[in-house]
Amino acid sequence: MAVAVQTFADRLAAEVERKQSQLVVGLDPRLDLLPVELRGDVARFCCGLVDAVAPHAVAVKPQLAFFEALGPAGIAAFDEVCVYARRAGLLVIADGKRGDIGSTARAYADAYLEGDEPRADALTVNAYLGRESVEPFIAAARRSGTGIFVLVKTSNAGGDVQDLQLTDGRPLWHHVASLVAEWGEEVVGEVGLSSVGAVVGATHPRAVADARRLMPQAILLLPGIGAQGGAVSDLVRAFQSGPASALVAASRSIDYAFRETGGDYREAAGAEAARLKKEIWAASGW
Amino acid sequence: MAVAVQTFADRLAAEVERKQSQLVVGLDPRLDLLPVELRGDVARFCCGLVDAVAPHAVAVKPQLAFFEALGPAGIAAFDEVCVYARRAGLLVIADGKRGDIGSTARAYADAYLEGDEPRADALTVNAYLGRESVEPFIAAARRSGTGIFVLVKTSNAGGDVQDLQLTDGRPLWHHVASLVAEWGEEVVGEVGLSSVGAVVGATHPRAVADARRLMPQAILLLPGIGAQGGAVSDLVRAFQSGPASALVAASRSIDYAFRETGGDYREAAGAEAARLKKEIWAASGW
Repeated sequence: MAVAVQTFADRLAAEVERKQSQLVVGLDPRLDLLPVELRGDVARFCCGLVDAVAPHAVAVKPQLAFFEALGPAGIAAFDEVCVYARRAGLLVIADGKRGDIGSTARAYADAYLEGDEPRADALTVNAYLGRESVEPFIAAARRSGTGIFVLVKTSNAGGDVQDLQLTDGRPLWHHVASLVAEWGEEVVGEVGLSSVGAVVGATHPRAVADARRLMPQAILLLPGIGAQGGAVSDLVRAFQSGPASALVAASRSIDYAFRETGGDYREAAGAEAARLKKEIWAASGW
Repeated sequence: MAVAVQTFADRLAAEVERKQSQLVVGLDPRLDLLPVELRGDVARFCCGLVDAVAPHAVAVKPQLAFFEALGPAGIAAFDEVCVYARRAGLLVIADGKRGDIGSTARAYADAYLEGDEPRADALTVNAYLGRESVEPFIAAARRSGTGIFVLVKTSNAGGDVQDLQLTDGRPLWHHVASLVAEWGEEVVGEVGLSSVGAVVGATHPRAVADARRLMPQAILLLPGIGAQGGAVSDLVRAFQSGPASALVAASRSIDYAFRETGGDYREAAGAEAARLKKEIWAASGW
């Protein structure tokens, strides 16, 4: 009999307890903002950030767009950073927002979540193409102990689509949230959390509370803190389903902290990550 | 004064006239289906397809998922195929279905559509994150004479999201179509077509007719012919806005035609592309 694979949610929950942290550090390597002494070496920049934040964060979230913009070398850097981060004891959430028809979604699942050593522990997914497009990711997640975060209510001003009102009076994103809750029932771990999570912008505090209610078992990935204007104190309700039931993601405010403080970029990132980790843990009430 | 860049829609329309074709050949390199003698050489397979279909198609549509699944070498193959296809006189529609918050969407636009020699002539885009997420692509399209195809009504069974009914009685995808029509007004070419197009599944003939009405200036990219079950004869109304106002995409039925017919994969693909091109041109009524 095959040994049951530990779920992503359970692996994450163990790390959250161990590190007393719900911080996710987004890795957004923007060439024009890198410290000049790195001469555009994106892998070195990101690995330096990994070293700096590993004691404080549970995961890193490399944003694929910035690696893709650099061509094949950028993807090689992405792979290098993923391996380096996992060796440093961090989970890796590949931020690709992928989504396609089922037969193609299987290829994306292969690319990021399948195999004995998947490139990432989780992937962000866009569900505009419906259940048929998400199922291959859920199947991969179940097999390999990985997870997904489905875009529900994003941190930008995306309300012109996500807030459209349905005939039952609810906004579209509430319906997507209920789909996520339903899909997630298939992969609930021992801690009671699902490996099908949801992206909800920390920039919309009321939506975060609604999301918690609509998806009681989903891990909420909350981007938008820092540069985008979200405040940690507004996110308390997100943690009502347990210490690992929400993750707060910050990217630019950590990656480029040195541009505010001066000094070494790793020291600045480490200090900001340490500060934010404590602030989030305190706000979470656990 | 800068010379005005020719729009994607105008470039496409010129090619449609020249080749009397509205055929787009999807490039879906699935390792397990490649001819054995290629030993998994994806770039060689795709360049062979390009040679075979160049006289019959106006564009190729490499599906990024299949290249991404192969890591950095897959992306290098993608780049090689894009360059090769453009040299062969084909437009390149990168099928990535990308979409992210504005500041990240700019990086995706950089990756595929920006610069003097963009990697692709057009990119498929997911608009669940709203106008703010699409604007960077439209800005890039205007600058570089490229285009986008926004997912409106996809060829799969994605109705559990796209068909949700809004309070005005319309399905969600009708609203997305009206947004596409509005966004596209900024980049209408001399032929009266916009460089902001729409993906509408050829598997839903009634939706294709509705889409034509809702987006009179949009170029409709219609996948789902062949392996997915759509029929060319059902697509006539898509062409009501001109010979270049719709493109019919077929992937598996051309790429892997040799698996039905036997013989060389290029000959089989070329024959199927030639047949389909004529069928589409006749159905279009131009």
